[in-house]
Amino acid sequence: MEEYRFHHHQLYDRLVHHAQSMNGDGYHLRHLIRADSRMAAFSAIGGGIFFDYSRQRVDVTTMELLSALADAAAAMDQFADMATGKKVNVTENRAALHMAARSFSDVPVRVDGRDVKPDLKSVLSQIRTFSETLHRGEVTGSTGQAFRHVVVVGIGGSYLGTEFVARALEAFADKSISLEFLANVDIHNFGCIWSRIEPERTLWVVISKSYTTAETMANEDLIRRYMDANGLDPAKHLVTVTSKGSPGDQGADQGLAAFHMFDFIGGRYSVTSAVGGVPLSLYLGYERFERFLKGAEEMDRHAIEAAPTENIPLIAALLTVWNTSFLGYPQTAIIPYASPLSKLAPHVQQLNMESNGKSVNAAGQFLAEPAGTVIFGEPGTNAQHSFFQLAHQGKAVPIDFIGVLNPQYQMDEGRFKGVGHQQELWANMLAQATALAVGRESKNPAKSFSGNRPSSTIVLENLEPENVGRLLAFYEARTIYEAFIWGINPFDQFGVELGKVTAGTIRSEMAACNENSDYDFNAVDSINRKYLQMLFSGKLPG
Amino acid sequence: MEEYRFHHHQLYDRLVHHAQSMNGDGYHLRHLIRADSRMAAFSAIGGGIFFDYSRQRVDVTTMELLSALADAAAAMDQFADMATGKKVNVTENRAALHMAARSFSDVPVRVDGRDVKPDLKSVLSQIRTFSETLHRGEVTGSTGQAFRHVVVVGIGGSYLGTEFVARALEAFADKSISLEFLANVDIHNFGCIWSRIEPERTLWVVISKSYTTAETMANEDLIRRYMDANGLDPAKHLVTVTSKGSPGDQGADQGLAAFHMFDFIGGRYSVTSAVGGVPLSLYLGYERFERFLKGAEEMDRHAIEAAPTENIPLIAALLTVWNTSFLGYPQTAIIPYASPLSKLAPHVQQLNMESNGKSVNAAGQFLAEPAGTVIFGEPGTNAQHSFFQLAHQGKAVPIDFIGVLNPQYQMDEGRFKGVGHQQELWANMLAQATALAVGRESKNPAKSFSGNRPSSTIVLENLEPENVGRLLAFYEARTIYEAFIWGINPFDQFGVELGKVTAGTIRSEMAACNENSDYDFNAVDSINRKYLQMLFSGKLPG
Repeated sequence: MEEYRFHHHQLYDRLVHHAQSMNGDGYHLRHLIRADSRMAAFSAIGGGIFFDYSRQRVDVTTMELLSALADAAAAMDQFADMATGKKVNVTENRAALHMAARSFSDVPVRVDGRDVKPDLKSVLSQIRTFSETLHRGEVTGSTGQAFRHVVVVGIGGSYLGTEFVARALEAFADKSISLEFLANVDIHNFGCIWSRIEPERTLWVVISKSYTTAETMANEDLIRRYMDANGLDPAKHLVTVTSKGSPGDQGADQGLAAFHMFDFIGGRYSVTSAVGGVPLSLYLGYERFERFLKGAEEMDRHAIEAAPTENIPLIAALLTVWNTSFLGYPQTAIIPYASPLSKLAPHVQQLNMESNGKSVNAAGQFLAEPAGTVIFGEPGTNAQHSFFQLAHQGKAVPIDFIGVLNPQYQMDEGRFKGVGHQQELWANMLAQATALAVGRESKNPAKSFSGNRPSSTIVLENLEPENVGRLLAFYEARTIYEAFIWGINPFDQFGVELGKVTAGTIRSEMAACNENSDYDFNAVDSINRKYLQMLFSGKLPG
Repeated sequence: MEEYRFHHHQLYDRLVHHAQSMNGDGYHLRHLIRADSRMAAFSAIGGGIFFDYSRQRVDVTTMELLSALADAAAAMDQFADMATGKKVNVTENRAALHMAARSFSDVPVRVDGRDVKPDLKSVLSQIRTFSETLHRGEVTGSTGQAFRHVVVVGIGGSYLGTEFVARALEAFADKSISLEFLANVDIHNFGCIWSRIEPERTLWVVISKSYTTAETMANEDLIRRYMDANGLDPAKHLVTVTSKGSPGDQGADQGLAAFHMFDFIGGRYSVTSAVGGVPLSLYLGYERFERFLKGAEEMDRHAIEAAPTENIPLIAALLTVWNTSFLGYPQTAIIPYASPLSKLAPHVQQLNMESNGKSVNAAGQFLAEPAGTVIFGEPGTNAQHSFFQLAHQGKAVPIDFIGVLNPQYQMDEGRFKGVGHQQELWANMLAQATALAVGRESKNPAKSFSGNRPSSTIVLENLEPENVGRLLAFYEARTIYEAFIWGINPFDQFGVELGKVTAGTIRSEMAACNENSDYDFNAVDSINRKYLQMLFSGKLPG
């Protein structure tokens, strides 16, 4: 079978050749960054974010070739098609309209001839009303007490983005309402949350597009049972976020409200839909959620409209493709020098790896090599004292550094060694990017730093809701641009199906043994049979 | 310069050749795991843990060759040397005696002729007394109120291991005492903690071996200032964990107590020393901390004594080397199917990547290619709904699955689809390992799973303190065995030095500008100069 290798063989070959030439010593970053014009030439500002790629292993030729690659892939055209409702999710015959959920313009966005924006606006308005009445104490639980705990019941895209935003904006949260995440079908997860909440003051926000997600449904069932057992009416303590007409859209017997989600917004792109909207409005207040949406919208406009040489999600995406497919780096680290962004890496891990960890192109042909990159990260400076040893002296890992000019906490920092905390933090971020790029020669190999290790630096003016929205939309657009350049569909996830099917087989074996303890697990292989015996005995073998 | 390629060229070449043969279709995991004897032949139990590598890409020949590699490296001899106090940290001329900190035997361990165990026992006894008197309310803050908040002030190895254990055993914690971690020199980190604690009921545990760690000292300084400003005596609210004679070992004017740490225990191996001992005894009670130590000790004995074919940390280490250096996988994911183990991956990330992310061997010669592997992970099933798309259909990632037979929460789980939560969780773990190994062919490339993706499965009987200790010691021993096989020194970390030096330069520039706002940052390159202007203006450029 012929394998697919991007769009244009000739361009691909030129990039391969150019990547080889960049390994020459004259192209070491310690030389490249010496030019005074380096940063001006290799940075851009857009959508409210500053993006500096002066310490990536690129020169003018690299960017020209990459730009040609974006052209050849018609990346910006595809992005514009997506924005206007074309069915860019070709394998599932769906549009991808997460941007419409935060579009405050009056321009209609039609799918199959029908404008989707009135539905989206109506859900947003329903979120606003619900959140405001709940905050005023007009919506209460079954004992009439105000809600103090909101528990998101959802997994993957139904909580990771919300968790990122909630943590990022925790400093602004309504301290009278706690926010917890019940994602896992793990009794530890439920047990730990149940031990922390007051059930009579708890609102469960159950999120599942199909309302059939195995983990979420098992948790929903357990919640109903525990609420019942505590003499509370589950329907007065639960709202759903789900598709119109799903088993979770059953009216007042089921919950206080159902907020609709749509098949044209995938889970990992759903933070700005009701998936994030309901919990974040309850936790932060609707106004802050709307400010967050408006920041995302600003970045969307930039991603659609900015010229290729100024378009920061597009440039960032080209750099991912360059680092992954041409320079051969198998992973990217995200290191925000701002503790509130501690959940950005887990969110982008899902967003990016589930979108782009693919082996086939959008037309269904096998790729010459799989797309995608492993994403991981922790906040700096913490990461410096964790895995940066490897980043400096082991196999190189391209890094996104993220800095924030003005912190959320404006408190007296004093000075230690002549600087405040915020300055010390920045001194470290700048030093790491510099040290990785420049390196240091030493006669002692153990104290040598080869340098030439690439990074980008993203700067936000502050961590107000708008900027968290911009950052979220930047990583979404970047992920999608990467996919369009690689020629893959970032909106499906067939790779999660086989595990579900296999889990179903094993679940049936367990259920059979629950019914008949002599059952011998004959439908599974010999390895799994031993594990099932171990689990049912509760003991290690031997 | 000649590069170093493990110990024995001939053996290395045989492994390379064998790895190539394993790419043949007859060696696909779907065939290998078919044998009924597979699991018995490729699993072991030891130190209280079950370790199954039947779904790794190995056969009998692989294990024989790897075993010869361990012999050639004298890995077990080096491990025994380490245990008996030899200076295996050759670059720093130090012993590596984290195991002595949890050895309850009477066998002396001598460094330079002097038994270190009396000192270690004396610190442990001091921890016990302090923790017990504090829990009885006999140690209080400067207003006479009992402590309710413990804040660990330390970074890297001074908190990551403690955070892992505290989270793992949270279900057993004394609910009257909260535990927070102030690691980062980030005003968000301090501000967020300060907003959550009652200062008059807070004990700060400041941890730094040298008591010169930049972040920790800046935070210690800020804490003293804020406690003073609140009319509280910092010395009555602070204990230190530090080296004898360090600036943090200054008696009653400085703090309530100083607990000593030693140069023969490195930060990332220090959880079972006073670094973990002080906060974990306060949070969990001393008895549970001691049970945790005893579990670790049991795994240590196994790692020292078990025959190579039964020695699970050694086998696991050989598999890392096999997967990394011969099969070419650049990363490993750790996926515990148990939410309390959510901080295991960040801990092992530091432990392993800081130990083994190296480019030189222990004798100071450059390696042919850098050692080490990127570690990342999240709990399952959450990870299935996040990055497992890539694990199934993108570039393969070897995985450590971790299962727990009996959960900490023994509550009524009911049954949903015929199974309880714990069973559903296990059905998923087993299904993922199976699906990754076996794959599935399909005419539609988008729904094809190539399979042959390796994993190990680790099983614990429960999550009592002993098992958390065993798991911790397993990953420590595995990391060290990997290093001995690669021929590197896992106990130094020269790779973190350059960033510190560079940060010092940038800090001085900031301090100069704090003194004189006209300062023009002339000691840094043009890129950093622009960043410093940005930071001091508080605004994005343009």
